[in-house]
Amino acid sequence: MNIPKSNFSEWYNSITKDAQLCDIRYGIKGFVVFMPWAVMSMNRMYAMYEDALERRDHLPALFPALIPESYLTRESDHVKGFVPEVFWVTEAGLNKTEERYAMRPTSETAMYSMYSLWIHGTRDLPLKIYQRCQVWRYETKATKPFIRSREFHWIEAHNCFATREQAMAQVYEDMEMAQEIIHGKFCIPFIFFKRPQWDKFAGAENTFAADSLMPDGRTLQLPSTHMLGQHFSKAFDIKYTDEAGKSEYVWQTCYGPAISRIYAALIATHGDDKGLVLPVRLAPTQVVIVPILKEETKAKVLEKCKEIKKALECCFVVKIDDSDKTPGFKFNEWEMKGVPIRIELGMRDIDAGIAVVARRDTGEKMKIPFAELDAKLDEIAQAIDKNLLSKADTWFATRLSSATKMDELNDILEKNPGFVKVPFCTDEMQGEKCADLIKEKCQANVRGSKFGSDEVPKSEKCISCGAHATIYLYAARQY
Amino acid sequence: MNIPKSNFSEWYNSITKDAQLCDIRYGIKGFVVFMPWAVMSMNRMYAMYEDALERRDHLPALFPALIPESYLTRESDHVKGFVPEVFWVTEAGLNKTEERYAMRPTSETAMYSMYSLWIHGTRDLPLKIYQRCQVWRYETKATKPFIRSREFHWIEAHNCFATREQAMAQVYEDMEMAQEIIHGKFCIPFIFFKRPQWDKFAGAENTFAADSLMPDGRTLQLPSTHMLGQHFSKAFDIKYTDEAGKSEYVWQTCYGPAISRIYAALIATHGDDKGLVLPVRLAPTQVVIVPILKEETKAKVLEKCKEIKKALECCFVVKIDDSDKTPGFKFNEWEMKGVPIRIELGMRDIDAGIAVVARRDTGEKMKIPFAELDAKLDEIAQAIDKNLLSKADTWFATRLSSATKMDELNDILEKNPGFVKVPFCTDEMQGEKCADLIKEKCQANVRGSKFGSDEVPKSEKCISCGAHATIYLYAARQY
Repeated sequence: MNIPKSNFSEWYNSITKDAQLCDIRYGIKGFVVFMPWAVMSMNRMYAMYEDALERRDHLPALFPALIPESYLTRESDHVKGFVPEVFWVTEAGLNKTEERYAMRPTSETAMYSMYSLWIHGTRDLPLKIYQRCQVWRYETKATKPFIRSREFHWIEAHNCFATREQAMAQVYEDMEMAQEIIHGKFCIPFIFFKRPQWDKFAGAENTFAADSLMPDGRTLQLPSTHMLGQHFSKAFDIKYTDEAGKSEYVWQTCYGPAISRIYAALIATHGDDKGLVLPVRLAPTQVVIVPILKEETKAKVLEKCKEIKKALECCFVVKIDDSDKTPGFKFNEWEMKGVPIRIELGMRDIDAGIAVVARRDTGEKMKIPFAELDAKLDEIAQAIDKNLLSKADTWFATRLSSATKMDELNDILEKNPGFVKVPFCTDEMQGEKCADLIKEKCQANVRGSKFGSDEVPKSEKCISCGAHATIYLYAARQY
Repeated sequence: MNIPKSNFSEWYNSITKDAQLCDIRYGIKGFVVFMPWAVMSMNRMYAMYEDALERRDHLPALFPALIPESYLTRESDHVKGFVPEVFWVTEAGLNKTEERYAMRPTSETAMYSMYSLWIHGTRDLPLKIYQRCQVWRYETKATKPFIRSREFHWIEAHNCFATREQAMAQVYEDMEMAQEIIHGKFCIPFIFFKRPQWDKFAGAENTFAADSLMPDGRTLQLPSTHMLGQHFSKAFDIKYTDEAGKSEYVWQTCYGPAISRIYAALIATHGDDKGLVLPVRLAPTQVVIVPILKEETKAKVLEKCKEIKKALECCFVVKIDDSDKTPGFKFNEWEMKGVPIRIELGMRDIDAGIAVVARRDTGEKMKIPFAELDAKLDEIAQAIDKNLLSKADTWFATRLSSATKMDELNDILEKNPGFVKVPFCTDEMQGEKCADLIKEKCQANVRGSKFGSDEVPKSEKCISCGAHATIYLYAARQY
């Protein structure tokens, strides 16, 4: 790495290549190869998210990757939103297919066509099902690995309930789950916004989306959860018979944590000028041991390295780097790859009965007696993850500001970009033209109202049209 | 379940529906929905297989689902083998694509196009990479859930080596891994056959495939591992510079455990007239507690059920079925779903200080004092998995026979179908017409020579052409 993180866009391209996270040279535009160092972390992220879903009574299933065009077009807003982005299968073997099949851009229509067969009575509710899969979208915007590509890896959960209240409770649970996992475990800060009506998911009543911030102050959307109301249940005829014998449409929600995109936020949130910085719980290698080798003591030092590795393997993924590169080269390489803890060990250390331990997040070096290594490393690992979270939170807090005038908003977005709270006329459809004005004047998007905030403007004016402001919305430049 | 397993084909269709393993009513022919009860077991199978691969130094990666037609057609045997089975993407959004993209039927060509960029010297070897993904094949044969469908879920490992010997060692390791996981953990017996030259993988030098047996004595192919030689490395220009500075093509292998198909073998191998029987280590619910409820003692009994559940949760996935169905109905339902251990608990049992424990595999019922429950259940769990394995092995052994005449072969395949050892002229290409004769006369396929056997015919004649037999091959009817 010789690009400073302050030059974020180039730093990002460089680290995804240098740390071998992905390879963008595959033969189809917008499709990348996800390489082992990234996939090993993504697999840990998947495992934590799937565990969180299952603890909340979601069951895993696997639906087909292909969706008949006739399914996809059944809900009118949904079809408008997704059809321009679809990869279509039209041939199979030497034949034309009977109708076009969409490679799933998302699975509402695949899953709900089955839900209508599965749900009959209150006994079948709630139905909470998720799948881990890939989705494909023919993005016309510029692609960037992990951030926006034409193929991405996600989890999608699709739930049905007897009442609107239960569905809303699920939306809250989805947000709480993102808090537990993405913030609590991956150490990535974000804000949940209720999207304005003009920016909700195609087919939803309301969309709640977690927006994180990249180091350049531009926002990246992480999971969103959608209150679908009864739009899809009416289009797909998903009904249940209630206790009084009446037939009712179910209430639905869906939720989509895109693991490959959350991984982009992980790189961007924690990385530094030297490369990746990974939380211990997500690092493919958590502890790297670099032996300092001299010909005459080589065997002894390697022996001790193996002994330490064995002792630590109960709690950590440990690797000894005994390749023939220099220690300095190895230090740089493993720092670039974000390995959280490095142990350096030479004959002099062994004689002194200590190991030199270096923290990737702070650069701090410590001499630790062999006997204390196990216990100390546990402490250090916890301290690293805690530090990454608090550092990220602290930085995030500096990127929240507010403005009441368009000039002021533009000025903040230039000097201290992030989320800017602005008074706004409305987040209903008629507010869209005011949002368009912000886009035109400040190259920023209106992300919505902050979920959970009950702050209401008293005597302020809409930043765009000057009418009486009824709500605070947040603006940000976005990926 | 009211179809006996002896009527295997109908039993199979019925159990996949009744136990809610899959739903075949999806809107595209040959595509099924894999439902939670199956996916939960499949996820455990994936985890064990991925762990086995990683312990053997394979790294996970994720390659695109779409493959440019120009990649797919680069190795001539491969293209002939796969192109008739491909689903083609030809449109994206409102545009035609630049060339046709294949939905991967297998990933050799996607991966090897990148390997040629990744491999330079001996330091880059061996390269051992796997991915967990779906593949799509436009099957023209009749589809059957899990056994043969147009979309299936698998793992594929693709490795590169400096020498032929290292590549062959990998093929042996792949077979040993199948033995460890599929036989040792999933309790499914099989034989590894070296396929005859006319039946090898498209593009391989040699194919080694694990064939299991269904209860009707027909064989089902489980993982296969392929010695690819240098066919693909020459087509994809994958070269390394050896220590002498000479440029050499790598030697390659690939390996494809199809988890969804192994799941079919799991259903078929262990199931009985009452439904599924699952090994404890693969059961989504391992212990079900059925309370025997009477109005006046309901609270007390449920309380005790919860206490037992809590105590057992350290080691088992436990569920209390407190729904309002009758105990008898619940017994049948959980037996049909294959839950390995059932605990029945009524007030009378509580007063007596015992729980009634029933084993799914043997039907045996035991009275176990509460204090011994933890320890006894561990023992029972181990006994169940051990029993399933030995039962399966014992049955499998009864299905191996041998024949020297065509009439005899046909007779065995009618009366005691399974694998039949026959003397054969050769497993090289020129033997194919002899295999065709067996297909014509006995509706059976030649599966190849048994891997690891050094038995050679002495003075026997080929069962088909009557020429001097040089090898023993095995014939079986197949799925």
